[in-house]
Amino acid sequence: MTSPVSRRRFLTAAGTTAATVWIPKDVRGYGKAEVLARVTDTKAGAGVSKWELDTPALCVDLDKLEQNIATLRTALTGSKVASRPHAKTHKCPAIAKLQLGAGSIGICAAKVSEAEVFSAEGVRKILMTTSNVTRSKIQRAMRILKENREFIQAVDYPDNARDLSDAARAAGLTADVVVDVAVGTRSGVPPGDQAVALAQLIDKLPNLRFRGILGYDGGAQHIKGFKNRYEQSLQHLEPVVQTFEKLKASGLNVEIFSGGGTGTYNIVTKVPGFTDVQVGSYVFMDCQYLEIGSEHNESLFTDFAPSLTVMTTVLNTYFPGRLTADAGTKALTLNKPDPIVIGEPGFAYTAGSDEFGSIRYETASKQYKVGDKLELIVPHCDPVVNEYDVLHGTRQDRVEVVWPISARGKSQ
Amino acid sequence: MTSPVSRRRFLTAAGTTAATVWIPKDVRGYGKAEVLARVTDTKAGAGVSKWELDTPALCVDLDKLEQNIATLRTALTGSKVASRPHAKTHKCPAIAKLQLGAGSIGICAAKVSEAEVFSAEGVRKILMTTSNVTRSKIQRAMRILKENREFIQAVDYPDNARDLSDAARAAGLTADVVVDVAVGTRSGVPPGDQAVALAQLIDKLPNLRFRGILGYDGGAQHIKGFKNRYEQSLQHLEPVVQTFEKLKASGLNVEIFSGGGTGTYNIVTKVPGFTDVQVGSYVFMDCQYLEIGSEHNESLFTDFAPSLTVMTTVLNTYFPGRLTADAGTKALTLNKPDPIVIGEPGFAYTAGSDEFGSIRYETASKQYKVGDKLELIVPHCDPVVNEYDVLHGTRQDRVEVVWPISARGKSQ
Repeated sequence: MTSPVSRRRFLTAAGTTAATVWIPKDVRGYGKAEVLARVTDTKAGAGVSKWELDTPALCVDLDKLEQNIATLRTALTGSKVASRPHAKTHKCPAIAKLQLGAGSIGICAAKVSEAEVFSAEGVRKILMTTSNVTRSKIQRAMRILKENREFIQAVDYPDNARDLSDAARAAGLTADVVVDVAVGTRSGVPPGDQAVALAQLIDKLPNLRFRGILGYDGGAQHIKGFKNRYEQSLQHLEPVVQTFEKLKASGLNVEIFSGGGTGTYNIVTKVPGFTDVQVGSYVFMDCQYLEIGSEHNESLFTDFAPSLTVMTTVLNTYFPGRLTADAGTKALTLNKPDPIVIGEPGFAYTAGSDEFGSIRYETASKQYKVGDKLELIVPHCDPVVNEYDVLHGTRQDRVEVVWPISARGKSQ
Repeated sequence: MTSPVSRRRFLTAAGTTAATVWIPKDVRGYGKAEVLARVTDTKAGAGVSKWELDTPALCVDLDKLEQNIATLRTALTGSKVASRPHAKTHKCPAIAKLQLGAGSIGICAAKVSEAEVFSAEGVRKILMTTSNVTRSKIQRAMRILKENREFIQAVDYPDNARDLSDAARAAGLTADVVVDVAVGTRSGVPPGDQAVALAQLIDKLPNLRFRGILGYDGGAQHIKGFKNRYEQSLQHLEPVVQTFEKLKASGLNVEIFSGGGTGTYNIVTKVPGFTDVQVGSYVFMDCQYLEIGSEHNESLFTDFAPSLTVMTTVLNTYFPGRLTADAGTKALTLNKPDPIVIGEPGFAYTAGSDEFGSIRYETASKQYKVGDKLELIVPHCDPVVNEYDVLHGTRQDRVEVVWPISARGKSQ
């Protein structure tokens, strides 16, 4: 566990790099008028200081966001691995467009309802990493495919492959699919013969096109210590690599071998045949990732800057050593470790109450009064983003853009 | 900790009572056309079986919901305590209207953004239990008050009382306020002299009207065992009762003495002067409340029926003793205890992964296959409701109405 002090030092140092300039201006998201037309419930327009926003408010520092996207691109340059960022993290078409504008080869979606949103917003290169197993969701997938032929979906059962092929035939389409090969026991077909047989079945089915495989090691992303993470990830992926090699040997066209994440973005480059990494959290960072340690800093993951924060307001100061703020579970989730209060290493913030945050402290940088604002790094970025309708993009603390989180709540 | 078996027995028995008939039909929520006009992203209309809904889907059994509302009314009949249900639980104007139609004297809101939604939907008797401490939120409160003179808000600081009075004067209004008296250290002014002085200040300020006090004991609601809960709640409230009596003795008009919740609805009736209970979870129930025990059943809280469930779909059956389903943290939150799978007492369901639920089991009622549906009782109803845009109201498993969760995400 990193001490709050060392974390704080990092937070002060991070994000001081000048904004990179390579992001095309035309994908910087919606303009103010477009945002106001789409978002009826945001009270704060562009130009407002983030310290004046009604709270709880979700903010992203645009300089840091752009820096993170640039850092990833630089890190992968020269490797054979591209990035296919997972949009389940941000659920925000504007950020997907930033990522694609910076060279990502597509995005991932976890659910068909997310894929619907991104496809409707003009994001075409979507790889859905979960299978669609019911008749209704297969129909939803076909409706996406009809409008967007670059939609690819995961399959992990022979019956599901047949159902998809039948649905595609009925719709007059050919569906691109990848086989999800299990790493662990959560999703996917077990590696080896079963996975190879499934790929061969897909290759023969009339309305499916086999594109490759997924091998996502969810359990590896947060292993603490780079060496541990490095060794365990490569070991966990070994059966998937063997499957990949069997598929190639059998003559199948395995053009996609996708997996990995923010914790292993600089590890999967060592996996033979690997094509692209499904990084999600790298754009935002969070307390969970800060703790895992990086290649050159065993105690703190400093590769990416924490760009995502929640602004909160102090509501109560009556009780010694305690403060109450207005961001609780519904604003921060119950994930651990607890939120970090930027600039207050002596604060222990818990979001265990639905509507309130409780702070305990022995030392504070100042005497707090009711109405004061605090800025928090969130425990785990993905489910926090899912609590908000809009994300305030700030530069030097001023709101530059308000992005709708268009796929918020799309858990289907 | 209750065993899954005894829980299951309860779940089978609950909700078999015939639907009560006293709920006025005209407050049963939006009609189908109105819902479809308002809710663009629900794929399932009325009449569909809940077992055919795309998942994850949030459902409420309308018979049980009505039964819970009737149970509370019956329980409070003959006491001097009314109900003022907390709408932070359901965030759903249609349910607020059911509660008001069944005799509740108003609703509570936790945040000004919630109060805005309910007021705009025609719910007038709103008591906001949190104070509005910033200039911007005070303005939002004044805008509500301008349209809805039955809006009451909490105050716990003298400066805040002065700010509110000034804002009300500027708006040409008189604002009704209650003093939030602290039980514990989370919110409110400490009981005793400080609270009395604040009430007297409010009484003198030109544009405020003092209406009474709040004394909410959040920590008492989930104390296990009725006797423990009974004794501790009354003990925690003792300083608030003394404050109430001082206020009365000083000649102030203390017409509201509000607090309590689902865990203490039949305890606060013993508190001298108490006027109304802020029950929230009683309409839905959840795994947390099932565990607290009731007056006549030490191990299981059987007073209200679990009406709220999440439907989920099995995605993976490859691995022995395990299933993967499609409801994870974003559909169920990380609250404990874990979700209960109805009809499968041998299942241990964890929602620790953002997108997936992981089930471990030794015994199952049948051989599960991909695409099968499961129904879950949620860990803690309030934050789960906040993850969904719509609530499917079902009767005998058929969707009768789809209610927008209009205040979802209103954490400001």
